[in-house]
Amino acid sequence: MFKVNENYLKLPGSYLFSTIAKKVNAYKAANPDKTIISLGIGDVTQPLAPAIIDSLHHAVDEMADAKTFRGYAPDLGYEFLRSTIAKNDYGKHGINIDIGEIFVSDGAKCDSGNIQEIFAEDNKIAVCDPVYPVYVDTNVMAGRTGTYNSDTQMWSDVIYMPCTSENDFAPELPTQTPDIIYLCFPNNPTGATVTKEQLQIWVDYAIKVGAVIIYDAAYEAYISEENVPHTIYQCDGAKACAIECRSFSKNAGFTGTRLGFTVVPKELKAGDVSLNALWARRHGTKYNGAPYIIQRAGAAVYSEAGQEQLKNQVSYYMNNAKIIRKELKNIGYSVSGGINAPYIWLKTPDKMTSWEFFDNLLEKANVVGTPGSGFGPSGEGYFRLTAFGSYESTLTAIERIKKL
Amino acid sequence: MFKVNENYLKLPGSYLFSTIAKKVNAYKAANPDKTIISLGIGDVTQPLAPAIIDSLHHAVDEMADAKTFRGYAPDLGYEFLRSTIAKNDYGKHGINIDIGEIFVSDGAKCDSGNIQEIFAEDNKIAVCDPVYPVYVDTNVMAGRTGTYNSDTQMWSDVIYMPCTSENDFAPELPTQTPDIIYLCFPNNPTGATVTKEQLQIWVDYAIKVGAVIIYDAAYEAYISEENVPHTIYQCDGAKACAIECRSFSKNAGFTGTRLGFTVVPKELKAGDVSLNALWARRHGTKYNGAPYIIQRAGAAVYSEAGQEQLKNQVSYYMNNAKIIRKELKNIGYSVSGGINAPYIWLKTPDKMTSWEFFDNLLEKANVVGTPGSGFGPSGEGYFRLTAFGSYESTLTAIERIKKL
Repeated sequence: MFKVNENYLKLPGSYLFSTIAKKVNAYKAANPDKTIISLGIGDVTQPLAPAIIDSLHHAVDEMADAKTFRGYAPDLGYEFLRSTIAKNDYGKHGINIDIGEIFVSDGAKCDSGNIQEIFAEDNKIAVCDPVYPVYVDTNVMAGRTGTYNSDTQMWSDVIYMPCTSENDFAPELPTQTPDIIYLCFPNNPTGATVTKEQLQIWVDYAIKVGAVIIYDAAYEAYISEENVPHTIYQCDGAKACAIECRSFSKNAGFTGTRLGFTVVPKELKAGDVSLNALWARRHGTKYNGAPYIIQRAGAAVYSEAGQEQLKNQVSYYMNNAKIIRKELKNIGYSVSGGINAPYIWLKTPDKMTSWEFFDNLLEKANVVGTPGSGFGPSGEGYFRLTAFGSYESTLTAIERIKKL
Repeated sequence: MFKVNENYLKLPGSYLFSTIAKKVNAYKAANPDKTIISLGIGDVTQPLAPAIIDSLHHAVDEMADAKTFRGYAPDLGYEFLRSTIAKNDYGKHGINIDIGEIFVSDGAKCDSGNIQEIFAEDNKIAVCDPVYPVYVDTNVMAGRTGTYNSDTQMWSDVIYMPCTSENDFAPELPTQTPDIIYLCFPNNPTGATVTKEQLQIWVDYAIKVGAVIIYDAAYEAYISEENVPHTIYQCDGAKACAIECRSFSKNAGFTGTRLGFTVVPKELKAGDVSLNALWARRHGTKYNGAPYIIQRAGAAVYSEAGQEQLKNQVSYYMNNAKIIRKELKNIGYSVSGGINAPYIWLKTPDKMTSWEFFDNLLEKANVVGTPGSGFGPSGEGYFRLTAFGSYESTLTAIERIKKL
């Protein structure tokens, strides 16, 4: 008789954003006359930039002609995209990443969720708390997290690194030694970031204790301040200890277009086993590449026109962030984030729990945000708003929140 | 100190098709003047059908306008696609599949590779031998297959079900009881298939022993004979024991466009645990949906124009299959497949091993095929040719093989 993966049954509730979607849909069904504004899931709203649209149309036409039609993509992704990434995301910062170290995928969610597979089951993970739920949930599914305590909302075998207003939302080095450290800067959900010097401390620590860092840099395009690293490889020694995940979702509006990549440096090894080779094996065995037309769209992101258009798109969202930040501060909210990231992280008023504030906001202001506790126990009492709405809906949402 | 997933290190060599690509590239580099014809990897060569191209352009235009732009897709895929699938792939055969049982993905390779994750590690798998390598390799990675014997090329904890000319390439029920049974009909690589009555025996057996069947129906569009089931759900009771994976790669030329789906019936349970709910959890946690524009292209596959155009495309490839089959038979090869599948399965001449024949064909005819032994020990002495080349290149390849 077949048996299921019992680890799945340990997961409390459903995936955070699925839960939110269900709650919102239920509210909509019960209140069909209400207009809901979502500053919740971190989904973009601006259309794809013209340079990307042109590139998509062109690639579609190529697929219509036997002479230019493309079947299976190369395992790691098309070279035209990987070489552009190497040049623009790394070369520009003086970092040499070989195209054999870049794995094109359908997004950072998949990559940051799947990467744990190449590690042993008894490795111990450390995560920021609060954190993007995918890191912990995928390790739960793999049986790496021990047992769940529903009172503390913590897993027995996970090292939590609290990020709260007390430490300015930057984690401290853990006292217990981890094998795998998940870091995400600019951070989802807090919008916080670290300086290059702060990140160097993590790289040095990882090398010292023999840990690997999974660095999620999905929000890199939103960095506005100097001395905030754009990639972990700006830190000395990072190629020997860090894997970096990147996304096209937020810098180019690809949430529904799906493209990302992960860098696994060739010098990153466990003994003489290359993690690059293991990830290549996974890629080759369980994945068949991002669609050709989408990879072409990805390349257009780096074109001169694409860069110009996307700079404007990022500015558009960051203007929303500025408005949310300023207006909420004005009415007395305690607010952070929104400077190097499209997320505003606020303390819930009146000691409301995160979900109480969620319900309150949904029902009284018809605005959807994300409960901080959904990102981990230290997120309790916090709430995330995103800057990815339209300018108009952001203004409306703020007006409604003001009236609460 | 972090450790790697030791199961990965047990895998002998690289993924079959990666190995072939490397061999071919090395030969090309050494012989730049030679024109290689690939009847190897099962990649299509005909351009996307006009109805699909139109649909892609239209969807790209939607992504250019904020009013019609799409961000994150619904977890299971867009309803417009799932309802079309339910109607056309199942309703047409009198089978009721709820759209909540259909999970849209980026292809059957990912799905058939990832599906094992929702099962316990100590479940025992049974596979046809030879078989698409993804089934076994992904179970190796999960630690489900025991140790590898390089002499027999078999894993200690895998039940192999030989499919050879002796049993007309249709597996017999295993003597040892499996928990998970992988079946693929029309079969890759042998091109063989089973009748509805034969498949019913498997469904009855699975229910009797409490096994789940992973049914890969990627080549369904190539079925030309009556009484060959188009879906396992044509068999009584299959919804209580079978998961079905489907692909747009071969019926619509989506190898480089990436789209597939998997059906996990709601009545398929282990005790009171629904596999549908587990797969939904995986989908929601580790995956973010196929691109909107690709899902639109998928819907166009089922349009009247799309169906007509794709019928012609399938006929085009099946004409190649007919030619390969007939011509190779004429010159004395022992040949099967090619009637309900785009694969021709031949016995290597002169007792050559599969890889010897591969090298021989590559070097002397500049034709690439796939060594049968790459699909499992019982594939030794066999060789796979695909019908997915162009008509012209197929003819040329046959002429070259004739001269061997």
